[in-house]
Amino acid sequence: MKYSFRNDYSELVHPLILDALKNAGTAQLDGYGLDVFCRDAAELIKEKFKAPDADVHFISGGTLTNLLVISSALRPHESVIAVQTGHIFVHETGAIEATGHKVCTRTGYDGKLAVSDIESVLDEHEDEHMVKPRLVYISQSTEGGTVYNKAELTAISEFCRSNELYLYVDGARFGAALNTTACDLEYADFARLVDAVFVGGTKNGALFGEAVVIFNDALKPDFRYLMKQRGALLAKSSAMGLQFKALFTDGLYDKLARQSNETASYLAGGIQALGYKLLFEAQTNFVVPVLPTDISQKMGELYGFYEWAKVESDVAVRLVISWATEKSAVDEFLADLKGLTAVTFGGK
Amino acid sequence: MKYSFRNDYSELVHPLILDALKNAGTAQLDGYGLDVFCRDAAELIKEKFKAPDADVHFISGGTLTNLLVISSALRPHESVIAVQTGHIFVHETGAIEATGHKVCTRTGYDGKLAVSDIESVLDEHEDEHMVKPRLVYISQSTEGGTVYNKAELTAISEFCRSNELYLYVDGARFGAALNTTACDLEYADFARLVDAVFVGGTKNGALFGEAVVIFNDALKPDFRYLMKQRGALLAKSSAMGLQFKALFTDGLYDKLARQSNETASYLAGGIQALGYKLLFEAQTNFVVPVLPTDISQKMGELYGFYEWAKVESDVAVRLVISWATEKSAVDEFLADLKGLTAVTFGGK
Amino acid sequence: MKYSFRNDYSELVHPLILDALKNAGTAQLDGYGLDVFCRDAAELIKEKFKAPDADVHFISGGTLTNLLVISSALRPHESVIAVQTGHIFVHETGAIEATGHKVCTRTGYDGKLAVSDIESVLDEHEDEHMVKPRLVYISQSTEGGTVYNKAELTAISEFCRSNELYLYVDGARFGAALNTTACDLEYADFARLVDAVFVGGTKNGALFGEAVVIFNDALKPDFRYLMKQRGALLAKSSAMGLQFKALFTDGLYDKLARQSNETASYLAGGIQALGYKLLFEAQTNFVVPVLPTDISQKMGELYGFYEWAKVESDVAVRLVISWATEKSAVDEFLADLKGLTAVTFGGK
Amino acid sequence: MKYSFRNDYSELVHPLILDALKNAGTAQLDGYGLDVFCRDAAELIKEKFKAPDADVHFISGGTLTNLLVISSALRPHESVIAVQTGHIFVHETGAIEATGHKVCTRTGYDGKLAVSDIESVLDEHEDEHMVKPRLVYISQSTEGGTVYNKAELTAISEFCRSNELYLYVDGARFGAALNTTACDLEYADFARLVDAVFVGGTKNGALFGEAVVIFNDALKPDFRYLMKQRGALLAKSSAMGLQFKALFTDGLYDKLARQSNETASYLAGGIQALGYKLLFEAQTNFVVPVLPTDISQKMGELYGFYEWAKVESDVAVRLVISWATEKSAVDEFLADLKGLTAVTFGGK
Repeated sequence: MKYSFRNDYSELVHPLILDALKNAGTAQLDGYGLDVFCRDAAELIKEKFKAPDADVHFISGGTLTNLLVISSALRPHESVIAVQTGHIFVHETGAIEATGHKVCTRTGYDGKLAVSDIESVLDEHEDEHMVKPRLVYISQSTEGGTVYNKAELTAISEFCRSNELYLYVDGARFGAALNTTACDLEYADFARLVDAVFVGGTKNGALFGEAVVIFNDALKPDFRYLMKQRGALLAKSSAMGLQFKALFTDGLYDKLARQSNETASYLAGGIQALGYKLLFEAQTNFVVPVLPTDISQKMGELYGFYEWAKVESDVAVRLVISWATEKSAVDEFLADLKGLTAVTFGGK
Repeated sequence: MKYSFRNDYSELVHPLILDALKNAGTAQLDGYGLDVFCRDAAELIKEKFKAPDADVHFISGGTLTNLLVISSALRPHESVIAVQTGHIFVHETGAIEATGHKVCTRTGYDGKLAVSDIESVLDEHEDEHMVKPRLVYISQSTEGGTVYNKAELTAISEFCRSNELYLYVDGARFGAALNTTACDLEYADFARLVDAVFVGGTKNGALFGEAVVIFNDALKPDFRYLMKQRGALLAKSSAMGLQFKALFTDGLYDKLARQSNETASYLAGGIQALGYKLLFEAQTNFVVPVLPTDISQKMGELYGFYEWAKVESDVAVRLVISWATEKSAVDEFLADLKGLTAVTFGGK
Repeated sequence: MKYSFRNDYSELVHPLILDALKNAGTAQLDGYGLDVFCRDAAELIKEKFKAPDADVHFISGGTLTNLLVISSALRPHESVIAVQTGHIFVHETGAIEATGHKVCTRTGYDGKLAVSDIESVLDEHEDEHMVKPRLVYISQSTEGGTVYNKAELTAISEFCRSNELYLYVDGARFGAALNTTACDLEYADFARLVDAVFVGGTKNGALFGEAVVIFNDALKPDFRYLMKQRGALLAKSSAMGLQFKALFTDGLYDKLARQSNETASYLAGGIQALGYKLLFEAQTNFVVPVLPTDISQKMGELYGFYEWAKVESDVAVRLVISWATEKSAVDEFLADLKGLTAVTFGGK
Repeated sequence: MKYSFRNDYSELVHPLILDALKNAGTAQLDGYGLDVFCRDAAELIKEKFKAPDADVHFISGGTLTNLLVISSALRPHESVIAVQTGHIFVHETGAIEATGHKVCTRTGYDGKLAVSDIESVLDEHEDEHMVKPRLVYISQSTEGGTVYNKAELTAISEFCRSNELYLYVDGARFGAALNTTACDLEYADFARLVDAVFVGGTKNGALFGEAVVIFNDALKPDFRYLMKQRGALLAKSSAMGLQFKALFTDGLYDKLARQSNETASYLAGGIQALGYKLLFEAQTNFVVPVLPTDISQKMGELYGFYEWAKVESDVAVRLVISWATEKSAVDEFLADLKGLTAVTFGGK
């Protein structure tokens, strides 16, 4: 295989983080997130969000983060509202339900949840024979690589505040979302509009780790107890603090995301120039072109990627760009696609 | 503070693991534990246990590992038997209960569970008004640094097999346990005697990560589903595979543990030579001397350590040695202790 | 209000059951379902199903029964398949999710699940990032009063057995289902085709109580432990045994259900004779006519019933007949409806 | 067997409750606890406690009540404090743990928890590596038939309020506790001193059902949601409302309990007059005499009772008196015991 476009977590770790690990040497560090790296990283993140009172915690992965934040916010009979393609509903093996909570879904649009979706869930739930929706879960960027813009997020936020709903953002690809022209939101907007967000490290250069940022005071108490109980309070949390310190020093986090998005945009343009359509606009680091099945198959022998959907007799495939994807890999992909395209069209 | 003896996870990571990370570069790796490092590491671990049919999984921390293995093995009404000082009963914020299962405890001896303890729990549980004990949890080495020897483990194993009880070993400090003269057990004995064990990386040189080794076929099915559901299946599991590959290459894992134990033994000898008693024999990398309160206090101004117990008017303190503890740090500690001892004795 | 057609559990208890309670006097009975009434009732029920090896347990209500059977059958990562209108998905306040399990739904048809629905859920769930469907939940009769016939149930049963899926039947209105011409299934067919069923008492004359009948040996072990743990093992289970003994003596259970169905059929005919349509055929004890909104409103001042759905500018209302509904109440309802109909039509 | 002293729930239902059931006839009642009987019963109970603002709910059994109240009050990492003989810790098949919460126990005295016990649990739980105790569970009367008096309950209440601990009372035998001279507490004292209590019907004449009374506003919101989710909101809750209305009309509840206690006292006196000791004072409807093993065995052939404990070579047996136990049954028991006693002593 020449190159894998399967996902943005194929490469282990960014060299600058590796340097930070090396520099840490064998200095003795406090355990369980009370060390100097976690403190420094938390400060940098709070500055970024302009949220000096936020609580920041570091957790090893996204599913663990989601189940932890959600289960810590809800009483047993309360539920989550999410779009049907939401990661928690599809790809976390029922992790939310395993903590006892139902996920109420709506179809949404472009992988996103509309205010009308949330409203329709509330309307449907009328009494104690049904769960009580209490938290709205959205992903930024979404599972399809699309983004909520400021108007959309503001509308959701206002609706949530008027209806006693928490608003929580899965930011596994938060960097990708905030570093695209498709999104007019800044970090500080989230501090103002949502109750909690997690800023993903795993998919943007870190070896592992996500940073949960809690803005709403109601969600802060005893969070470390809940982390420990779910197995999310690592003895060596410092290993995550150190990484997030590196990522939020000199804008590395944003730089890596922007670079991925730009490479994706370059790939999208090249594919379109060959005459192929995209299933939807490439807003972040996902490109989803619709290819004839035979071409998709032949490209699949050379490159790694997942099939996203059947589109009549064609197939939409998902190409994901990471911080480590070189322009040369994209060029090679485009050249191979061009070659196959020529042959195919020529053969007709 | 001159040096911290608080625990064995104060230093981030062993240099050889750091080298392995560096060597990995930006090679593209499969996600979720299906990569080449996880495969290689699993092979090395299975060889070590002489258990070619074992299943090996990598999980970020000990509490997550414990709650995962235990909850995956039990039906809702089944319970765990543990010694009262067991990590799952004391220091995991009710993680096992949070998965729905009761932990039935006995006092035990030297931090260990005896067959008679297990038997007494079974005798007490007679019908459907009580939980049904189904799994025995032991730690090797224990929370006090003591170890089960072959006779003890064999007796427990035989009792468990005669009574339909799974036997699971928390090996957060498995290396320390298997590399001391106090323990006549080898890796392969565990493959024969227990149903599952986790081999701890965090407390023996790794940046993070534990390796679960499942011997009993009944515990194998769908374990990856359960990992994912609990947030324990990291996208970059490769980061753990790589570390365990390094640890189980050229005997690094055992070497680091042996070295910790020897340094601890040296410290223990030095303390005893100054006329102090140990609360119990230092079998692994824990040394628990009984010191006069004023001396403990003064040493506490120079060194980091936890108080373990009051012993009449004295205090027992816990000194933990890690793979990174230099002999020079121990010598300095002993010198300072000697100084204080002289003054104190001289003053009488 | 002249009469309530809101549900079939408005009247406390059938006189013959009251007599049985009276006859029991103050005889001393064993606790927790080990008494003579429970034994006798279980025998009668097993005879009825021609299933001498079945296990029978008595539980106070339907939601408790559903959550108990389902959670006892599944491992943590396994899920339930149900139709979107299924009681467990809509009206049990997330009881199944509260035990940790996701409910995967499909739209279905006439309130029923088709084999193709189940198949489509299986097709969608491909790996460990998703829950593993393991049990199919259907209601007989359904939440809309429709019934599965023998061909439908057989097809589902065969599909389940070929795909390692348990098949469980919510029989809150099992009597209504088995005593209508729309259903060609007999009790014994269920012993052959499904893994467990509960036979509802509450909605067919009992003061309270449902009888779970487990046919599949795999679901039998330790069920009493699970009952006790969920608070479903009543000290005075004898109170339920006694009632089910009365219900399954001299065919009372079937007689009451048949009578409800016949009264419903009479009501349906009368409504249709007045020129109104039913939203769907009245197969059991539910009649769902579509009425002009103003007529529905005026009838609602005289009689109790729930609105089922909007149908363009009209409204479909749900009329439920119980074992205690007298023909005279139905006649009065029809007369009042006729009166309003005449006025309305006359006024045009 | 001449008579069973095994428990106080052997006889189905008190005749006055049966009459009430009969009088209810086939009147149509609202479902799910919204009927007139539940309303009337709640009013009577609130009057009894002089607590007009209390919330009252009816639940089918004690275990379900306990798990419901406790799980509704706690966040996931919070735990319960109980005496080691507490029903929730011993005889509810891990029902509390099954809702995710740990039960922290102390030995206590006479089946009761002392303030010092609670304090010692709090002292032990110091940080986020341990659960956070949040609710104290006591039984009144206790599992051994002893009672907390006003001084004891007041001390516990004050300690709880100073330490952010809820205080919840399992009153499965609340009537027995409040109708003995050993207890100087009145109903209204509980409204003042505790956060919630359940008043047991099953063990004092009801066919089934317990009444939860919630005094603390913090525990009231959405309780009906939680009931429904746990399967505790019966369609025919009216069946329990009706019974509690009967029990709290004309003091029936207290009368039945007082009568049981007096009969127990009579039995205790008779046994002592024969020269036998009681293991502990018979404060309510439990009598626990210490009998020679051979006499216990012979009496066991004539009467039903459970062995409570071995006392050297003798055995302590538990004799429970119910509202239905006739004085004649006690006299017969005493006569038989006297006969055996004479023979045994005579034979020496």
